[in-house]
Amino acid sequence: MQLRDDYGRKRVIIQKVKPEIDSGTFPIKRTVGEKVVVEADIFTDGHDALSCVLLYRKEGDANWTETPMSFLGNDRWRAEFAVAELESYRYSVQAWVDTYKGWSHGLSKKVEAGQDVSVDLLIGAQLIEEAAERSDGPDGKKLQQLAATLRSQEEPVKKRIRVALDDANGALVSKYPHRDLATEYERELQVVVDRQRAGFSTWYEMFPRSCSAEPGKHGTFKDCAAHLPYMAAMGFDVLYLPPIHPIGRSHRKGKNNSPTAGPGDPGSPWAIGAEEGGHKHVHPELGTLEEFRQLMTEAEKFEIEIAIDIAFQCSPDHPYVKEHPGWFLWRPDKTVQYAENPPKKYEDIYPFNFESDRWQELWAELRDVIFFWLHQGVRIFRVDNPHTKPFRFWAWSLAEVKKEYPEVIFLSEAFTRPKVMYELAKMGFTQSYTYFAWRNTKWELTRYFSELYQSDVREYFRANLWPNTPDILTEYLQMGGRPAFMARLVLAATLGANYGIYGPAFELCENRPREFGSEEYLDSEKYELKQWDLNRPDSLKDFIARVNKIRRQNPALQSDWNLHFHPVDNEKIIAYSKNTDDLSNIILVVVNLDPHHAHTGWLELDLEALGILPQHSYQVHDLLGDARFLWYGSRNFVELNPQVVPAHIFRLRRRIRTERDFDYFM
Amino acid sequence: MQLRDDYGRKRVIIQKVKPEIDSGTFPIKRTVGEKVVVEADIFTDGHDALSCVLLYRKEGDANWTETPMSFLGNDRWRAEFAVAELESYRYSVQAWVDTYKGWSHGLSKKVEAGQDVSVDLLIGAQLIEEAAERSDGPDGKKLQQLAATLRSQEEPVKKRIRVALDDANGALVSKYPHRDLATEYERELQVVVDRQRAGFSTWYEMFPRSCSAEPGKHGTFKDCAAHLPYMAAMGFDVLYLPPIHPIGRSHRKGKNNSPTAGPGDPGSPWAIGAEEGGHKHVHPELGTLEEFRQLMTEAEKFEIEIAIDIAFQCSPDHPYVKEHPGWFLWRPDKTVQYAENPPKKYEDIYPFNFESDRWQELWAELRDVIFFWLHQGVRIFRVDNPHTKPFRFWAWSLAEVKKEYPEVIFLSEAFTRPKVMYELAKMGFTQSYTYFAWRNTKWELTRYFSELYQSDVREYFRANLWPNTPDILTEYLQMGGRPAFMARLVLAATLGANYGIYGPAFELCENRPREFGSEEYLDSEKYELKQWDLNRPDSLKDFIARVNKIRRQNPALQSDWNLHFHPVDNEKIIAYSKNTDDLSNIILVVVNLDPHHAHTGWLELDLEALGILPQHSYQVHDLLGDARFLWYGSRNFVELNPQVVPAHIFRLRRRIRTERDFDYFM
Repeated sequence: MQLRDDYGRKRVIIQKVKPEIDSGTFPIKRTVGEKVVVEADIFTDGHDALSCVLLYRKEGDANWTETPMSFLGNDRWRAEFAVAELESYRYSVQAWVDTYKGWSHGLSKKVEAGQDVSVDLLIGAQLIEEAAERSDGPDGKKLQQLAATLRSQEEPVKKRIRVALDDANGALVSKYPHRDLATEYERELQVVVDRQRAGFSTWYEMFPRSCSAEPGKHGTFKDCAAHLPYMAAMGFDVLYLPPIHPIGRSHRKGKNNSPTAGPGDPGSPWAIGAEEGGHKHVHPELGTLEEFRQLMTEAEKFEIEIAIDIAFQCSPDHPYVKEHPGWFLWRPDKTVQYAENPPKKYEDIYPFNFESDRWQELWAELRDVIFFWLHQGVRIFRVDNPHTKPFRFWAWSLAEVKKEYPEVIFLSEAFTRPKVMYELAKMGFTQSYTYFAWRNTKWELTRYFSELYQSDVREYFRANLWPNTPDILTEYLQMGGRPAFMARLVLAATLGANYGIYGPAFELCENRPREFGSEEYLDSEKYELKQWDLNRPDSLKDFIARVNKIRRQNPALQSDWNLHFHPVDNEKIIAYSKNTDDLSNIILVVVNLDPHHAHTGWLELDLEALGILPQHSYQVHDLLGDARFLWYGSRNFVELNPQVVPAHIFRLRRRIRTERDFDYFM
Repeated sequence: MQLRDDYGRKRVIIQKVKPEIDSGTFPIKRTVGEKVVVEADIFTDGHDALSCVLLYRKEGDANWTETPMSFLGNDRWRAEFAVAELESYRYSVQAWVDTYKGWSHGLSKKVEAGQDVSVDLLIGAQLIEEAAERSDGPDGKKLQQLAATLRSQEEPVKKRIRVALDDANGALVSKYPHRDLATEYERELQVVVDRQRAGFSTWYEMFPRSCSAEPGKHGTFKDCAAHLPYMAAMGFDVLYLPPIHPIGRSHRKGKNNSPTAGPGDPGSPWAIGAEEGGHKHVHPELGTLEEFRQLMTEAEKFEIEIAIDIAFQCSPDHPYVKEHPGWFLWRPDKTVQYAENPPKKYEDIYPFNFESDRWQELWAELRDVIFFWLHQGVRIFRVDNPHTKPFRFWAWSLAEVKKEYPEVIFLSEAFTRPKVMYELAKMGFTQSYTYFAWRNTKWELTRYFSELYQSDVREYFRANLWPNTPDILTEYLQMGGRPAFMARLVLAATLGANYGIYGPAFELCENRPREFGSEEYLDSEKYELKQWDLNRPDSLKDFIARVNKIRRQNPALQSDWNLHFHPVDNEKIIAYSKNTDDLSNIILVVVNLDPHHAHTGWLELDLEALGILPQHSYQVHDLLGDARFLWYGSRNFVELNPQVVPAHIFRLRRRIRTERDFDYFM
């Protein structure tokens, strides 16, 4: 322990700064325009007063901006700042014993008690003179005059006390505090700032090869472009395409994941790489790279962004296998180790060997794959199975990309154990898939979203909710049919500021599993071309369009932090609200989770959380059905028939008209 | 981020190591012989198996000792080690991808599925050969043979598989794992080890000046020695004396804290320093330094240790004031700033100015004060108001002392805000006073002790419970009389492995406040000499002796971590248990918190926590009243009359005799 300099005189302690992830090892995340609320335990020994400031700056800036922190009680202080630009920010905390503030408090107490304060006034004068020395410009003169008044033997004591305790004078002195002995928090913490779509996005996944107007024909990027108006009408703003690269032929999978492919079988797009090229090439049957760029341009017109898939694995035919044998693990029989999870074998997939001694070369190439697509204009990537590649690789490669393209968005597809999912988010993924698909009961949903949105997890893990994917057809959807699809759509779209569906399977309520107990689709699109009848009368497309419109029109649904669950006395009905910080927009969602039966229940609204006074009535407007109700008090009746619509999405209006609104009301 | 060496190949993540206080800034605490249970989140990407070890060593040792960690589920691992010696220890965690373990799991699954494993056996042989290279002695040869068997084309495959999956062979290979790419946890964490009395101690505070046999005469160390048998009979093992230094005369306080002292008033012992000397001198009326050492020697015979008071403040007459004016804050009127908490003034006390530019000199002198008493043989210090001196001063001075005297115990008397109390404990105080005196209801007690014993706080904050002190006569004691003293004694002695009382005021149930609303004693011993009638028939001395004997005989009461509250359907009755880790000693305490009325209630014992099967009866033996009951099931009736004894201290015996215990039972 050093006993030099001013070490021993710095008496303030700063601790338990929040947000701080794993001792500051990882940054927190925000989108442009959001705020960072910083709190800390700050205290010193004895009875001295202290002051403290939140410090923040953009990553490259030399100087901190300061904002004073407010006292919350129990030695806790708080301040906030907004992240206005698409850059990283740093923040920290500084605090010091504020002798002047302490003197001023003491003086007023002594005056109240009628004590002699003549010496105290001289002490105050001295403190103000010291502040004058630290000041600049005209303030110095004012401070000197102030000190002189406090010292003056000619002025009556009463006047000197009044001047000393005057608020404006106090504020002037406090502009020039003595901070030589200030404590700085030991760490600078980081905020990564993403663009707004990172926090609010509506995804649609589709296989372009199934887009052909002609049955049995391989769809192309051009066919895909023809579907853009359909997706835009439903209100999606991200179109995510499964891998668009050449597909391997060795061990190609046939229909329904058969180990042998028939002559016409197109194979799984995740078996990447063939004679025609690998991760930097486009599957010829989809079109050319030029045509892919045209699709992106076309999509822009509909305010849709194209997201592509990053799946770092190879088919046995990938050019890498011959060109870079060192990137793979070789078995004693001179074959490459294919993917396996014994006793399961995935012979169509060769994983990279990240423990290879050529790891630097491999990392560089994989990073270049991402840059290749950035150069084509792609700014959103869905990353396949990132949990089967080293964490450090992602930390490094995502940082490399963000340095040059701060607007890029990476969605982590890690359906694995919770700590691994969270760790990937810490490594830099912008959004993450979740367990939402398997959270179906009220207890499960409440517990899971409390963890995601009300614990520290929310600082770095941005949920993206998917009721289905090409790999996940849940039992709930299999058994619940159309009402289940509607309920899950509403839950995904309102619980998650970010959500997505795998379509057209979703809007057409495709729910036939390959076999009982499996989550795979029967005749899965992963292994064959499909022809979807988008105009089927039972399609949910209009319902989805309505829900997505509600999302766009209601800022409460564009963020996740203000989620609040409300009790209902029926386990099959869930109710929750979201609101903007200023309570100008409040959405209340009520969903019947039982797709088979109508349910009723008494909802117990937490009015205080919504800023509604218990003696006021309020209007609830169902944005799905357009009905309006006047509610009063916390307890209200709800009834939902899944055969009609299994959910309400209410907008709450706190203010209703009364006779007092008329001009002639006194 | 470095892309050199093996950075990218180290794939295991180690996180959330516990115990770890404030990112490892502060050590945890244990007493000699206790264990440290270490847990961590440990995981890697993909499906690979991993292994991990807890590392630990004594502070000075060059090499780690290792112990393998066990898997708990959800990526959590655990191991423990014991701290056997009175030294600091370090601990950390190391983990690596265990290719051999993963291969072995995979092999058994493939064999079960009837797959061809000939290539797998060759892979295994290679891994075993690598282990052989890392081995030494005869193991190398055994491993080579093992590998040869796996490779052998002559041996039948079945035999090669059997050899490969043999547990003993597996254990041999696992002795030599490939750890070049192991991850080490980024921090080494520290355990400070104290002697056992730091964790289990029974304190008695007494003013030696009140020990004279002759009324009105100033007591001496010799008089104090005459009281040792009395304290020993009650079962105390620490005798804490308020400051024993010369007492100032300027602004000396009179009886009942009067601002002016009468001619015979002895003054407050905390107004330290006079012509006769300061912190390194003994008050002449108590005796000489030699006589103080004799008191310590005498106390040793009764297995009692003397604790003295460290109060770093001065009376205006302290020699420091003249010799070191720079250590004090001077006011513009050329007087020293006395202690104040406006509008209250404490003119008999000068605090040190820790912001002085002579702080190093001041720190060194204060440390020397502690060393002075260490050289006299004192090993326990009660530190007065440590929260009015800088945290860094304590961190430094306590560390300096512990380096030379690892057996020293410091009790922090910081009755202040919770975060400040906890921070002082982190700085190195061995034990701390608590809010126990003001926690009187079941809700308060349950909540407070859950915080102290069941959160991270327990890792560094060792509670010492005092129902009263010379400054604290609670309303509960004032109003509840003798039954209140008994209830509070039982609570302190059984909730706290460390507890103390201020006597003889406590055992004589002294409860007259100076005035209504005050916690000060009427005619407080702080300002005058007292004469106590130790043989009064209503003294609690025998009751205290009994309780302290129960503490000594029951190891469950000698530690705080296994505290467990059990519900009772009457808010006035509290019930809790403590047990040894092995459940060989279980104590159940039931206290009526209402000193005025008898209460009954149904107790709902958590049998599972106590290792009692619901279908077995068990014996409860009241160690206070000596009654024995046979209980069955979790629900049992209790009745407590405060006019008799307001508490049960039961020992639970899980095993009772049945017919099966007879020899002739088949």
